[in-house]
Amino acid sequence: MPTETLKEFFHPESIAIIGASADFTTISGKPMKNLLRNDYKGSIYPVNPRYDEIEGVKCYDSILDIPGQVDLAMIAVSAARLISILEQCIEKNVQNILLFSSGFAEIGESGRKIQDEVAKMAQENNVRIIGPNSVGCLNVKDSIPMGFATSLEAENGFKTGNIGLVSQSGALGFSVFGLAQEEDLGFTYVVNTGNEMDVTTIDTMEFMLEDEDTTVIAAYMEGVPNGQQLINVAKRAKELQKPLIILKTGKSEIGKEAVSSHTASLAGSEEMFQVIAKQYGIITVKDIDEMIDVMKIVSRRKWANGKKLVTVSNSGAAGIAMADLSEEFGLLLEPLKGETKEKIEGTIPSYGSALNPIDITAQALKEQHIFTDTLETLVKDDNTDIIIIQTTFGGALGEQICRKVAEIDKREAKPIIVTVTGTEELTGKGRQVLREYGVPVYKTTYDTMVAVKHLSNLSDFYKTELAAERPAVNAGKAEKEEYKSGVWTEEKSKRLLKQLSIKVPESAVAESLGEVEQQIDGLAFPLVAKIISPDILHKTDAGGVKLHIQNAAEAKQAFNEILEAGKKYKEGAQIEGVLFEEMLSEKGVEMFIGVKKDPQFGSFLVCGLGGIFIEVLKDISIRHVPVDKAGAKSMVEELKGYAMLQGTRGSKKADIDAFADALVKISDFVHQHNGDLKEMDINPVAVLEEGQGIVALDGLLVWNETEQADLIANQ
Amino acid sequence: MPTETLKEFFHPESIAIIGASADFTTISGKPMKNLLRNDYKGSIYPVNPRYDEIEGVKCYDSILDIPGQVDLAMIAVSAARLISILEQCIEKNVQNILLFSSGFAEIGESGRKIQDEVAKMAQENNVRIIGPNSVGCLNVKDSIPMGFATSLEAENGFKTGNIGLVSQSGALGFSVFGLAQEEDLGFTYVVNTGNEMDVTTIDTMEFMLEDEDTTVIAAYMEGVPNGQQLINVAKRAKELQKPLIILKTGKSEIGKEAVSSHTASLAGSEEMFQVIAKQYGIITVKDIDEMIDVMKIVSRRKWANGKKLVTVSNSGAAGIAMADLSEEFGLLLEPLKGETKEKIEGTIPSYGSALNPIDITAQALKEQHIFTDTLETLVKDDNTDIIIIQTTFGGALGEQICRKVAEIDKREAKPIIVTVTGTEELTGKGRQVLREYGVPVYKTTYDTMVAVKHLSNLSDFYKTELAAERPAVNAGKAEKEEYKSGVWTEEKSKRLLKQLSIKVPESAVAESLGEVEQQIDGLAFPLVAKIISPDILHKTDAGGVKLHIQNAAEAKQAFNEILEAGKKYKEGAQIEGVLFEEMLSEKGVEMFIGVKKDPQFGSFLVCGLGGIFIEVLKDISIRHVPVDKAGAKSMVEELKGYAMLQGTRGSKKADIDAFADALVKISDFVHQHNGDLKEMDINPVAVLEEGQGIVALDGLLVWNETEQADLIANQ
Repeated sequence: MPTETLKEFFHPESIAIIGASADFTTISGKPMKNLLRNDYKGSIYPVNPRYDEIEGVKCYDSILDIPGQVDLAMIAVSAARLISILEQCIEKNVQNILLFSSGFAEIGESGRKIQDEVAKMAQENNVRIIGPNSVGCLNVKDSIPMGFATSLEAENGFKTGNIGLVSQSGALGFSVFGLAQEEDLGFTYVVNTGNEMDVTTIDTMEFMLEDEDTTVIAAYMEGVPNGQQLINVAKRAKELQKPLIILKTGKSEIGKEAVSSHTASLAGSEEMFQVIAKQYGIITVKDIDEMIDVMKIVSRRKWANGKKLVTVSNSGAAGIAMADLSEEFGLLLEPLKGETKEKIEGTIPSYGSALNPIDITAQALKEQHIFTDTLETLVKDDNTDIIIIQTTFGGALGEQICRKVAEIDKREAKPIIVTVTGTEELTGKGRQVLREYGVPVYKTTYDTMVAVKHLSNLSDFYKTELAAERPAVNAGKAEKEEYKSGVWTEEKSKRLLKQLSIKVPESAVAESLGEVEQQIDGLAFPLVAKIISPDILHKTDAGGVKLHIQNAAEAKQAFNEILEAGKKYKEGAQIEGVLFEEMLSEKGVEMFIGVKKDPQFGSFLVCGLGGIFIEVLKDISIRHVPVDKAGAKSMVEELKGYAMLQGTRGSKKADIDAFADALVKISDFVHQHNGDLKEMDINPVAVLEEGQGIVALDGLLVWNETEQADLIANQ
Repeated sequence: MPTETLKEFFHPESIAIIGASADFTTISGKPMKNLLRNDYKGSIYPVNPRYDEIEGVKCYDSILDIPGQVDLAMIAVSAARLISILEQCIEKNVQNILLFSSGFAEIGESGRKIQDEVAKMAQENNVRIIGPNSVGCLNVKDSIPMGFATSLEAENGFKTGNIGLVSQSGALGFSVFGLAQEEDLGFTYVVNTGNEMDVTTIDTMEFMLEDEDTTVIAAYMEGVPNGQQLINVAKRAKELQKPLIILKTGKSEIGKEAVSSHTASLAGSEEMFQVIAKQYGIITVKDIDEMIDVMKIVSRRKWANGKKLVTVSNSGAAGIAMADLSEEFGLLLEPLKGETKEKIEGTIPSYGSALNPIDITAQALKEQHIFTDTLETLVKDDNTDIIIIQTTFGGALGEQICRKVAEIDKREAKPIIVTVTGTEELTGKGRQVLREYGVPVYKTTYDTMVAVKHLSNLSDFYKTELAAERPAVNAGKAEKEEYKSGVWTEEKSKRLLKQLSIKVPESAVAESLGEVEQQIDGLAFPLVAKIISPDILHKTDAGGVKLHIQNAAEAKQAFNEILEAGKKYKEGAQIEGVLFEEMLSEKGVEMFIGVKKDPQFGSFLVCGLGGIFIEVLKDISIRHVPVDKAGAKSMVEELKGYAMLQGTRGSKKADIDAFADALVKISDFVHQHNGDLKEMDINPVAVLEEGQGIVALDGLLVWNETEQADLIANQ
């Protein structure tokens, strides 16, 4: 169902509360209390045969007794009673159901059955369900609390803003909401999806993304319900420059088990999720504190022009810590230059430092202008992309400085971030002022720098990705008659590579002994001979490979020996002939290119160096397909063994560019056949010295329909 | 000077304030205000010719006019006036000086000169100085604030406890103190050492260590003033089981520059510091938040018996996050067993989980006993070493649960750690209760797990290190006549290795052609011949190596060729002869053992694999000397290439045990000659298959007195 339908869900004009209680301290009483306390403008229909009215609002025996239209039904009955209640809701033509009840898929098979039945009924009748196992949702814009989460009971209402928050876990989602509100962050919607029988975290993100008031989206998820949908959401978020922040758990084995017993999701592969997040600009965070820290900095919606950071502090120690973290996080802390440097030297005491980090010293306690004069100089400096102010000043002075900083931040486009370190008693008011103005403020240098790192990475992502013109997909298709069929062994795979303009050794195929001499005519010795058989994948084990063939006589001998060995190795194996190839005179660096299909996200391209790099160090690079040239180069650059390609140990620099080209060609091909290709393995690829290109020395393709069982039988 | 003298410094019975001001809002006014406000019991002597009295306390023109003894002088005059003031202090026989003034080494050469002069005067007269550039110290036990740091102005006094805190930075140190007090942590002393002209952070730690009220010590440092002293402090801290927590900055190049312009320290090598910290059980933290988080958990002084963790939560999401982090941090989250499991299954709802993480669900909102019943069951389970409780409950219920948990914690020896997630408004009171009882409490799962990781590592360290019987140092000494002299080339180095029972190839030395045949008699062919010359270190480059010698005739020919090549390579080179060695029939795994001397910490043992592991991956292991067998094994195990030794790629398992033995032998030797040995390089070492031992194939020693210039000339 399209996610636009969720708009009605979160903006109901009438709400039925099925199983409502007059005891407002209970789970079934709280939803009504929360609506009343927030002066809900629509109609409230409590449903419970035990009451005539609750707090003066007429109570109904059944939802079918309600006179008017019901936009949303909130249900807190037990799993066992749910089916009959749902039938009534469908009869009443209720489109949206928020399900608080527990006891479904998370308890095992019996609960899973009821959950599946309810889901089927809902789908057949176009009913949208959030839950079960949800503690509720909140439309912050119109102040409509729908549920019993503790944060919905807040005395002073909710602060509106530009953040949409969705969480599979109720406790965690509403904790984030509460803590973020405490930091003066404003929201549009807060949604707890629970077991996700119908509406998922990603559906909700998709809805929020198109809501014009929501410009930042944060999500907690224990699994990825739909990988391709997440990728689409991320791409759309990039277009709209709406940051996505995701906290995902279920990384470890025990964590995955716990996920399934909690909301009955599947956690999926953490490694692939991280690849997706990095590639599509999703900000991943380690915990709820970091989530809130990132919310602060991205909800300000100032992107950085570059990675050049300046830090101003009244504590030398904070400056040093920022310098250390800049290096660790890949930010640039460069010395100030020219006019900027001179001006600041003229502003601060002689025992301070106009290097970067700038140490304005405790003298700023006496001369308050030092902070703001320095800041005014820095905002005008084109060599400065991000400014971090750090103070430990408390009391009225601290507050004054913070107000000044906030005023400058308001008129300038450059990101300004503030660290105010100190107790709530001493420095709390300063932080409060900054929060009111929407300036990102943190308590510690580390938290500040983590947030700045995320801002810088995101800004860089927008800059690179929105500017990049991706070349059209241009890979050749596989020949028609062979398309999508079974396992392609070396000879067939190499024909494909040749079509894709990826170099393979000069070769010829002999199907019979008589053909050998004629076929190899024109090839340069020495040659290698390899068996061609779809039934024999491990050629060397089968005695199906002969090296260093120097002349036609040896070639014929090799043909005979290989055929004999092949027949002996596997009775009845279909042997199509022998492949003769020229041997390379230079070995180059041995690498591989692979393609893996992930059940959640589709095809990934993998590459790495051979030998101990893959066997001992598991040194590989992974990207989601498609990958462009820049992406391909970055894959190679992030390998631990990258130095091997740059020509250490006396050898010359390898042709990294040609290897990257091959990666893109494979990527384009895989992308065109996305979903059909199960696996691809080009291994080894000889990467020759710079300018000499690469040669693929072996290849294997497995198309999707091929049963795993066949493959195993072949080995 | 012995650090016991610091006791008087922090417990003065009379204090002179030189440069005191009647304006209590200024830096020179605040020290007196702070003493008066805290009802300082001793005598206060303000010194300033401009006043007759300040707040009714008689003011003196000069320190020499003060009638009684002065235990401590606090000085805030400018650097230029300091020398004459110091002369007066010395005349008055003041033993302790706290120096607030700035403008010394941190501003460059001119300031450095004054600082050095002051330091010299102080040392000659047995005066102890803290500072310059200090914002003060605090004796929390007796409530004596000495200085002008903002935290010293606290309205409600200071909370005493068991933590000693020392910081090179005033702003940072007193921020930590303020924030920790906000979390109800109690202290004994807080000291800001500033430029450390005399008293250093480590001196202060040494003093605190012997103070019986201080059982946890935390320090911020920008450099390590004395490496050996830090190691001694760490060893003593281990004996006393008093945890040391250190936050050290100045890791990056820019950070190091900033350090020197801040308090004029040298940051030193971060890598070696981290090795020292890990090896001697110092807890290192990344920022002040983590420092406070660790203070909480270690100041409770409950050590864990093992790494088995149980987590109990009302939020499934928190449980999952804890499971993920357990894996990441090397903690064990094992399924509950037997009676414990059954009991808990009987306590929690059916849709909860009695797996570990335990999910007691939101039902605990209704039935409050669920939390405490579960906890009571767990504390009795011997399979549980650390218990983590996680709640999001607010209001009176949350508070009640926290009180119950605190009561159980009070009577049980097992570490119990609590996460209370939620806003101050909702959940603040629960946290407050736990803090009052001294139960470690955190707001997020991540912070909790980081603290638990530190507790677990420290407990493990105590357990292992306090139990370990270190074998006596047993390495042979070098032969006397050669001891500590110049560069030892291969032949001499190998003689030493033989003495240390480290196997080298069977060998013989021929000094003349006539000797060759007789000398090599008894060696098994093939042989390798190598030139012996202290003037030629790179033998291969000099044509000084011949391989695969099969008989006596070839040996003689090799002798001649080598001598000729050596003379040609370097005119006048002293050639002592030719070394003939048996060649190994099996290569084994190529490794190396090295020794490096660090200016701060002394000798470190280094090892690693050869080839790309060292050249491309910089894959090395480092330990401070001495290293025992367990330490040597852990060195090998932490190598990225460890799998190479375990027999991947078809080869057999290597003799790791024999290699570890060699490491210990080298370590013992180096330890005996500590300080005299500059460098040692045994490279390569062939590690043969398990049971076959190792063979050192080359060696080089450089003794300390050898000038670098000689070495270069030799190459």
